[in-house]
Amino acid sequence: MGGDHGPAEIVPGAVTAVREHGVPVILAGHAGVVREELARLGAARLIDVAHAPDAVPMSDRGAGAIAGGSSLVVGLDLVRRGSGCAFVSAGPTGATVSCAASLLGAAPPVLRPALAVALPTVTGGATVLVDAGATVDPSPDVLAQFALLGTSYAEIVLGVSGPSVGLLSIGAERGKGNRLARRAAALLSGLPIAFHGNVEGDEVLAGVVDVIVTDGFTGNVVLKSVEGCARAVLRLVAASGAVSPEALAPVGRRYDAETHGGAALLGLAGTVLVAHGSSRAATVARACVAARDLARGRVAARIRDRLDPRPAR
Amino acid sequence: MGGDHGPAEIVPGAVTAVREHGVPVILAGHAGVVREELARLGAARLIDVAHAPDAVPMSDRGAGAIAGGSSLVVGLDLVRRGSGCAFVSAGPTGATVSCAASLLGAAPPVLRPALAVALPTVTGGATVLVDAGATVDPSPDVLAQFALLGTSYAEIVLGVSGPSVGLLSIGAERGKGNRLARRAAALLSGLPIAFHGNVEGDEVLAGVVDVIVTDGFTGNVVLKSVEGCARAVLRLVAASGAVSPEALAPVGRRYDAETHGGAALLGLAGTVLVAHGSSRAATVARACVAARDLARGRVAARIRDRLDPRPAR
Repeated sequence: MGGDHGPAEIVPGAVTAVREHGVPVILAGHAGVVREELARLGAARLIDVAHAPDAVPMSDRGAGAIAGGSSLVVGLDLVRRGSGCAFVSAGPTGATVSCAASLLGAAPPVLRPALAVALPTVTGGATVLVDAGATVDPSPDVLAQFALLGTSYAEIVLGVSGPSVGLLSIGAERGKGNRLARRAAALLSGLPIAFHGNVEGDEVLAGVVDVIVTDGFTGNVVLKSVEGCARAVLRLVAASGAVSPEALAPVGRRYDAETHGGAALLGLAGTVLVAHGSSRAATVARACVAARDLARGRVAARIRDRLDPRPAR
Repeated sequence: MGGDHGPAEIVPGAVTAVREHGVPVILAGHAGVVREELARLGAARLIDVAHAPDAVPMSDRGAGAIAGGSSLVVGLDLVRRGSGCAFVSAGPTGATVSCAASLLGAAPPVLRPALAVALPTVTGGATVLVDAGATVDPSPDVLAQFALLGTSYAEIVLGVSGPSVGLLSIGAERGKGNRLARRAAALLSGLPIAFHGNVEGDEVLAGVVDVIVTDGFTGNVVLKSVEGCARAVLRLVAASGAVSPEALAPVGRRYDAETHGGAALLGLAGTVLVAHGSSRAATVARACVAARDLARGRVAARIRDRLDPRPAR
């Protein structure tokens, strides 16, 4: 029921995920509304519906958005009970993150969850920013774990082998940064990851590392600053009259949340993907595929193995 | 002696400040080199030189950049002793900030200094980002004072009356943010400023407020992220072939540190302006004018008056 477009885009996205990518899906939402959409697509028998009695379209939502019978809680509960292994939503990120954290809990050895977002770089690839807003006041050891979460994400979703990890700070040299970054840097050096050292703000989109680690406050501010700046620059270019808006559209799309497939909430006992509120069906389908891949990749177990590799017998 | 171009741009900039703007200047640097440049410009008798025996061109600098006889220390010492009221440098920001903080000290009631940078907005104006990197771990009361410093800067340098102030955070609602932002928000509400509430990362360039307050770590990361993002987007637009690089140049200049005239280090017993290392003569001259205006504006005294207005007698 989430997202700016509600079931009209979410349901076709789920149908595409099943039909074209073989991802089994259960839809949590108002059964009547969802079944009507499914019937319209000739997919009534393709997808089960978990009825969410309090599910209301996004546009009508007030403070009761995360009532017990909302599609958010019903969907997350399917994962908690093991009926699903991943949850995908186009609803509000904040509500999804806090609800998922309390319903699913952290997956040991992970202490706190982190949001991972893949940012497009000038080199044509992507850099994973983690944490983009789940844990705003992490301790240094929690921040260091985000590097493990980001490494797993880059391996599983982006298919990068041995991804390099940078720590977002305010100077390239070791020892530069605030208290948190300085303490985290010392811990990161001791982890079994490809730690590159510090990266600065102007390197976020430069493609110098595969993963950039920061606290959820700084990460969220940077993510939104980059989105706002891209819009501002394109608006100025368009206003200069030197180029048609159509010619700029492909560049705009690169920095549009629509295309980077959503944010993954990593480190919980269950995979959670938050697609952008503006997501259309194709983005919802891509989010379902990424969620399936992350769930198969077993992020927490991968981190346990990395931290405590068993000797070959 | 600072900056990428050294005396070849700094000295003409100083001469312009004197001749065209009536700003009296003393040049701190290697007397022989500086006097030669002055003579070339017919300005030998226009400007006094404070000899800095250890002054070496930027390109030759190593760890000894802030030796006692460097132009940085000699120049700041002129301000400390009252021979000058403001110091302008195109040298490295980090060294200038730490050197200025220790030599000049904070000006009561200010507890810690902050770097203010005027960012160009899509609305054609500017928003002051403060702190852009001077104090990386401020307490909530120090962060709240940055709002007073930013307000003074916007009044004096940008000529804004009653500037509105936003707190950079990760949600528009009150109570959103990390521990530091939440505590600072409560303090900001009680200050005699036009406090707008929280602003998010995507509003940094939107022109919604005149001043954006944040800690020096987040501020520096955001400043560099915006600069890096603007470069990245323009590079992608140019690569698309839809527009010539020449047509993009004016947009690029808007986000180029060259044009926003440098960062002002506020809250010390003496005004300090750090122009970008790439500054040419015109930018150096503008920095001298801004430094003169800030010194005349008596930032710390202005804050004392604002916090403790005397009743009219």
